[in-house]
Amino acid sequence: MSRPHVGVGLIGFGTIGTGVARVLRQNADVIEQRLGFPLRLVRIADLDLERDRGVDLSGVRFDSDAEGLIEDPEVSIVVELIGGYDIARRLTLRALECGKHVVTANKALLALHGKELFEAARAASVDIAFEASVGGGIPVLRAIREGLNANRIESLYGIMNGTTNYVLTEMEKTGEAFDIVLKRAQDLGYAEADPTFDVDGVDAAHKLTLLAAMAFGVEFTFKEIPTEGIRGLLPLDFEAAKEFGYRIKLLGVAKRSEGPGGEERIEARVQPTMIPRDSLLANVDGAMNAIAVQGDAVGPTLFYGAGAGEMPTASAVVGDLIELAREVRRGTSGRVAPLSYLPDALQPRPLVPLAELEGRLYLVFTAEDRPGVLGQITTILGEHGVSLASVIQQRSDGGIGVPVVVLTHPAVEGAVRAALAEIDDMPEVLAPTRLVRIEEEL
Amino acid sequence: MSRPHVGVGLIGFGTIGTGVARVLRQNADVIEQRLGFPLRLVRIADLDLERDRGVDLSGVRFDSDAEGLIEDPEVSIVVELIGGYDIARRLTLRALECGKHVVTANKALLALHGKELFEAARAASVDIAFEASVGGGIPVLRAIREGLNANRIESLYGIMNGTTNYVLTEMEKTGEAFDIVLKRAQDLGYAEADPTFDVDGVDAAHKLTLLAAMAFGVEFTFKEIPTEGIRGLLPLDFEAAKEFGYRIKLLGVAKRSEGPGGEERIEARVQPTMIPRDSLLANVDGAMNAIAVQGDAVGPTLFYGAGAGEMPTASAVVGDLIELAREVRRGTSGRVAPLSYLPDALQPRPLVPLAELEGRLYLVFTAEDRPGVLGQITTILGEHGVSLASVIQQRSDGGIGVPVVVLTHPAVEGAVRAALAEIDDMPEVLAPTRLVRIEEEL
Repeated sequence: MSRPHVGVGLIGFGTIGTGVARVLRQNADVIEQRLGFPLRLVRIADLDLERDRGVDLSGVRFDSDAEGLIEDPEVSIVVELIGGYDIARRLTLRALECGKHVVTANKALLALHGKELFEAARAASVDIAFEASVGGGIPVLRAIREGLNANRIESLYGIMNGTTNYVLTEMEKTGEAFDIVLKRAQDLGYAEADPTFDVDGVDAAHKLTLLAAMAFGVEFTFKEIPTEGIRGLLPLDFEAAKEFGYRIKLLGVAKRSEGPGGEERIEARVQPTMIPRDSLLANVDGAMNAIAVQGDAVGPTLFYGAGAGEMPTASAVVGDLIELAREVRRGTSGRVAPLSYLPDALQPRPLVPLAELEGRLYLVFTAEDRPGVLGQITTILGEHGVSLASVIQQRSDGGIGVPVVVLTHPAVEGAVRAALAEIDDMPEVLAPTRLVRIEEEL
Repeated sequence: MSRPHVGVGLIGFGTIGTGVARVLRQNADVIEQRLGFPLRLVRIADLDLERDRGVDLSGVRFDSDAEGLIEDPEVSIVVELIGGYDIARRLTLRALECGKHVVTANKALLALHGKELFEAARAASVDIAFEASVGGGIPVLRAIREGLNANRIESLYGIMNGTTNYVLTEMEKTGEAFDIVLKRAQDLGYAEADPTFDVDGVDAAHKLTLLAAMAFGVEFTFKEIPTEGIRGLLPLDFEAAKEFGYRIKLLGVAKRSEGPGGEERIEARVQPTMIPRDSLLANVDGAMNAIAVQGDAVGPTLFYGAGAGEMPTASAVVGDLIELAREVRRGTSGRVAPLSYLPDALQPRPLVPLAELEGRLYLVFTAEDRPGVLGQITTILGEHGVSLASVIQQRSDGGIGVPVVVLTHPAVEGAVRAALAEIDDMPEVLAPTRLVRIEEEL
């Protein structure tokens, strides 16, 4: 007689789904030793019934009937891994209505429809778990939601996208241009055929939205987050960063901050950022992710691991399955608020406009190689209260003009932007000035 | 009318206890926003009723009656922070018998009496939580027990003791001797007046015992773990490590391994260890801690933060309080097995004898500065199958003999020890040869 198990249904049998099936099979013994009963994959729904995923499906019903899977009384927990918005939303809502717990890795869905889905889960007395949606296999949501929940979280800084971190690491190592490195990343499977979501920072902004909600109890949509991708970075920037003692990372940042009237505001952004070379985050290379969280009691912490990939993501999904299986067995739900703060406590708070941010900046001017031009530029910067810490004048490479690399002392971004508008109007300035933010606090 | 709260009683009002009172007070608002009800410190017991801890105790009953606190119906969760073995054990057992959940930071107690305490908790349908006992504020136990519990854990490597990491960081930075740096660490409050537990590795061995139980479901006592502290390290070792591209850390290591008959064994040890300079663990400086955990699905992960101190440790204690307050409110217990594996699944497994470990070693010979001596030493090593990767002959400093620093190719420790026994018998060898293990896998 088989022991009573908790049944899992999987919708979407792609890369991550295959990983989930694999982990449930290969680690069935240790999972049962921790749980006290088997966690069993009983059913899979996918449109592609032909492809061999190389995983043992004996005892698993596999067809294309997602609705049937959701309604199957053998299925207590539904794993949604189809991605996208509309169908994923519809199936997730349907599963919740049917009283099934849901596990998802779909950060886009949560960033867009999280509120609706969490409310539906609460109404149906079931849970939505989504550890895999941020930081892949790193249990960072659990850390913020439970491990650090005695803290008033002050800031979080994260490398939240493996594709861009891989590209940045390679650009630094090889000195090659963005397009060349991206192409290679695509050939190696580190970047998607359409890399827009990753390289333009949208994926990181989705994740930052979830992290900031959990950290600060703040409610905003990912579209409000100032977001800049890595397409604009040039080999020159990596050389200059090295010279100044920095490395360049696509950083998602969210901090508690105070407005002019003492009101609480949140500083949130996704940008390529120069960070000190000897910081732990600067040493997170390739497709790895890391999130640094600062709490008022705990101080600085950091959580590191693989941010994507079949098995790391499956690790997080199955971790959630184990947690929900306990709830199924105990007949309970809603142990912890999905976004750490109870829904009533979540509130919108204003974001700090970029123009008000203060910090050091890295600027690259492209100007004619003539005496006096650099003097004019520094004069205009000075008139806006921006003073310079270092200047590197590059040698002319025979292209248009010569790049002048400048590091400012701490300056207010609005003032810098105003100065740049004037500078970029100078006839001797041949291309728009480029700007990269520097974070020294790490 | 005050909302119904969950009441906490604190036994031991020293440094950590003060931190716990402080966190509960200063973060009462965010804690309630996450929990849905107040978590209130209602009672404190300590022998010292006079000292001003600088924390607001309004509404808190404070006396020396620990038994009374445990029996107080207002107290649902007891925090044991008195340290030591006997009284802590007695009070913890008493609290469990009274149906109170217990939070403790006492790794020594758990390493010694964990089995008895966990059984008592189970019998009384309450929980013992102990996140603060390993890695201070880092929620690493939670990460292993829940976040990574889909994995077969393969290895863990950790900097688990802040005092020794501070001393090693300073020795490297200043080139000073152990005694001098330790004295300064004591003056600054980074090391205790009696630093034995820390510098001899006992504290790290306690923590490793708990981590290994959770990671592998293995049962052993900390006394079985080969443990070596940092007293024997010399300034020369830090110079040589730098030259070879390593840093020296007191590392707790536990790995799954296979014995000669294919049986599962565990490799566990606490030792000063040379690790690659560019690894994340090598960059964990000062009093910080970090635990690197490798799982079969998730791959490499790392958890970093403050390993000790009033507020970081309080962060972990209050995190546990919040979790247990949920259980109090729901009237449940035993959600997760305290050591991750259910008690029935925990089993003793043999440790790998140090003599069977294979890896690169750093050796320092102290020999007469005469031609042929180094040749003799390498000949003996070669006869035992130990080959050398690098040799640095130091200049004689006028002291006894001249140190010869050697890096071996991967070698079996037993063979190396046999060679060293012969070498140390040579009349030209003036002091016992010293040995530091190298870990390349990080």
